[in-house]
Amino acid sequence: MRAALAATAAAAAVAAAIYVRMRRRDRLRWVAAVLADSPYAEEALVAAALALECGAAIRGVRRGASAVWKDGTGGIDPVTETDEANERLVTETLRRKFPNHAIVGEEAAAALGCVPEISPSVPTWVVDPVDGTQNFVHGVPLAVVSIGLCVGGVPALGVVYHAAADELYVGAPSAGGAWLNGERIAPDGATALPEALVATDVGYERSAEGIQKLCATSAAVLAENVRALRIFGSTVLCLVWVACGRCSAFYCGVHKRDCPKPWDWCAGHAICAAVGVTFLRLDGPRIAPDAGDGFDVHAGSAVCAGTPALARAVRAAVLGGLADRSRVVVPTAAG
Amino acid sequence: MRAALAATAAAAAVAAAIYVRMRRRDRLRWVAAVLADSPYAEEALVAAALALECGAAIRGVRRGASAVWKDGTGGIDPVTETDEANERLVTETLRRKFPNHAIVGEEAAAALGCVPEISPSVPTWVVDPVDGTQNFVHGVPLAVVSIGLCVGGVPALGVVYHAAADELYVGAPSAGGAWLNGERIAPDGATALPEALVATDVGYERSAEGIQKLCATSAAVLAENVRALRIFGSTVLCLVWVACGRCSAFYCGVHKRDCPKPWDWCAGHAICAAVGVTFLRLDGPRIAPDAGDGFDVHAGSAVCAGTPALARAVRAAVLGGLADRSRVVVPTAAG
Repeated sequence: MRAALAATAAAAAVAAAIYVRMRRRDRLRWVAAVLADSPYAEEALVAAALALECGAAIRGVRRGASAVWKDGTGGIDPVTETDEANERLVTETLRRKFPNHAIVGEEAAAALGCVPEISPSVPTWVVDPVDGTQNFVHGVPLAVVSIGLCVGGVPALGVVYHAAADELYVGAPSAGGAWLNGERIAPDGATALPEALVATDVGYERSAEGIQKLCATSAAVLAENVRALRIFGSTVLCLVWVACGRCSAFYCGVHKRDCPKPWDWCAGHAICAAVGVTFLRLDGPRIAPDAGDGFDVHAGSAVCAGTPALARAVRAAVLGGLADRSRVVVPTAAG
Repeated sequence: MRAALAATAAAAAVAAAIYVRMRRRDRLRWVAAVLADSPYAEEALVAAALALECGAAIRGVRRGASAVWKDGTGGIDPVTETDEANERLVTETLRRKFPNHAIVGEEAAAALGCVPEISPSVPTWVVDPVDGTQNFVHGVPLAVVSIGLCVGGVPALGVVYHAAADELYVGAPSAGGAWLNGERIAPDGATALPEALVATDVGYERSAEGIQKLCATSAAVLAENVRALRIFGSTVLCLVWVACGRCSAFYCGVHKRDCPKPWDWCAGHAICAAVGVTFLRLDGPRIAPDAGDGFDVHAGSAVCAGTPALARAVRAAVLGGLADRSRVVVPTAAG
């Protein structure tokens, strides 16, 4: 029985390997086909090949990824050897293939200690080699590779690979759409919270004021009878799930350490923008609450949704929660 | 190019079909092998074959599953044709194969309008054909098939299939372990919240008092500097993820409509119990807060974790949050 089991498992592994190789070739063919008329056809092919390769590394590690800790936050924001190896592979390849492009990566930015401004005059790759690192470290299969390209300071191309699900997302506003494993995707048509699955995130925010805001906004969204509220733990995955209608909406960035960075936004925003997802900002300082879209990759917060009506409804609930936040009293254990 | 694309896609589909068939045979072989000495070897094989079949139906549907609505809750608790077809397939097969066993299923219970008591004198199958139905309806690939067997009123065998990830979990305390795709699993060793990924759920609870409790408990867990907080939207998936160490802990059931039912617990509890996961109850009425485990499948609430220390820490935080709940004021839009 044990020998038969091993033989069947080995045969299944061979079939799997053939399958994966054929899938890879198939992927790169459809990426080339759907972006053939876009100005970023070559960039998309290179990014897709890199995303698939980084994804294989993510799948290969699973639990127990060796993690070191960034910026002394008590182990809450890990970076793993896989993040670093993936980012090295991506940046070296992009530098070789596109010597005139700039590159901004999460791990390089962490080493630098700041978020570099993305220049409107140079095409800039914005890379997160493993988004959802906490998930990745714990073996939760919700971590993605995110490779975006900003042109004129605006996300122009997005390639996202959800390795565990073997799902490759590619989109570009200039190509007039976005695709998941070769099929055109579209967002959800929900216009109100009772028909919406809404995702959010708590990021690394653990201050008393931050917790107050996080919980006040969740309470407000639940009080509007939202159909479902989720925290999946990967901003990029939430964005592409909004683009393909799995999530109706996503909001994030109510305080400080829950605010996404350019590498969380760039690829996902390009894919969302390509299918008409509405983005609205939450943070007043740069954009007034009623100033419309105004999203840029340096935004610290956003609501996005498949319809403008739902985006407005989620933003109204979240801003209402923030206005009421003083009514949430956080236990004194908080920092 | 288009023809080449279609040909590659077709070849990849054939490879995939062969792969899936070989995987299925492989799965049933390892289920038989690992449970060979357990009293439930035959039951496990039948349940695993059913779970794989129901999972194929889940994978086949993806978005836009035709949903009807249960118990007039404004579309918040959907049941789909897939739930009903899966439950029919499972109950008919189990009834034929094990005519002396009782069967409790989520959809049958919904039709009945109550949760049947699970008799300690009859082996009882407890089935949720699609757990994470909101995820399923929205196309979020976090929905599972859950088939458990209670013997003497206690979960004795659990079979859970996460279709989108093609992951089959099988466990039985009598077999001394649990397995994921043939590999033995073990829970996380985290003993404190700052090293823990903790999952919870908001279920269908939308009353002002319920929201207050949900948000007060989240605030308390965040204030203890939890490493990561998640809401994945499937109780059964969270349980098996605790069993295999992807989640450090899970808690659920702070008010009413977020309280799991026997079909949410049974299979997951059997798998967790087989690998030594600690369960503690939150609800005082039946078990005092310090009365130890005391979990049964009719429990409306539980904390479970890979270590007793973490289970106690999560329960302490949650009970602390509940004690402070009057400090969360929910906007008046709530029901």
